[in-house]
Amino acid sequence: MSDYQLRPVGRVESPLTDPATAPKQGDEGAPDAWLVFAPDVAPAVRDLRPGTDALVLTWFDRARRDVLAVHPRGDTSRPETGVFATRSPHRPNPIGLHRVRVLAVDGLRIRVGDLEAIDGTPVLDVKPVLGGPDER
Amino acid sequence: MSDYQLRPVGRVESPLTDPATAPKQGDEGAPDAWLVFAPDVAPAVRDLRPGTDALVLTWFDRARRDVLAVHPRGDTSRPETGVFATRSPHRPNPIGLHRVRVLAVDGLRIRVGDLEAIDGTPVLDVKPVLGGPDER
Repeated sequence: MSDYQLRPVGRVESPLTDPATAPKQGDEGAPDAWLVFAPDVAPAVRDLRPGTDALVLTWFDRARRDVLAVHPRGDTSRPETGVFATRSPHRPNPIGLHRVRVLAVDGLRIRVGDLEAIDGTPVLDVKPVLGGPDER
Repeated sequence: MSDYQLRPVGRVESPLTDPATAPKQGDEGAPDAWLVFAPDVAPAVRDLRPGTDALVLTWFDRARRDVLAVHPRGDTSRPETGVFATRSPHRPNPIGLHRVRVLAVDGLRIRVGDLEAIDGTPVLDVKPVLGGPDER
């Protein structure tokens, strides 16, 4: 494995299947979904708890990596903007960042709320939302 | 380039050089730093603006990828915890997530506040902090 090779640790299971009609952000009507982890990362998953908030990192495997500027939200009335100032999925490293609520935990299957990633999207990482210094 | 191959778009220039003594989070005394981007991503960088907040994604190239549970913050009095419930740099995909203020823009060099990543850390992506629905 090269230094810069990602290794998916799981997949999204979601009723969303079409990137063109999926909500652009989780709070824009996205459904609940499952994160389904690979058995070999079970020790990393085991302390996720219902009721907590987490940041899920995904890989937009259908995104274009050669796009450096876009019309935000696909709205051609808005000026082209460098992708580092937008949340476009199209970018040199198409890593998705999603803040979700953990709803339920069933072994390697984690139910999360309001996730706009489509079915089959590779999951790269989960991180807790950073609390204040006394909660770290 | 394989589907899961990351391509660094820049590097961190920082006075921090030792991971062992670097602050664990940006608000724990981390210094200001430069993000220095590669010329071929200039169009992606061009709309970053001083005074805005951004999320910087980095690659912890010195992290261990085979660690699935850690004592949080290296404190052995705390129980071992699955890394997806911690912000440890050691994890299957060691992607760092840093919220920073953009302080200054000088072409491909972006000055940011309070960044705990050490000198030379590869930069993968920059995203704006997501505002409310009317700011997207």
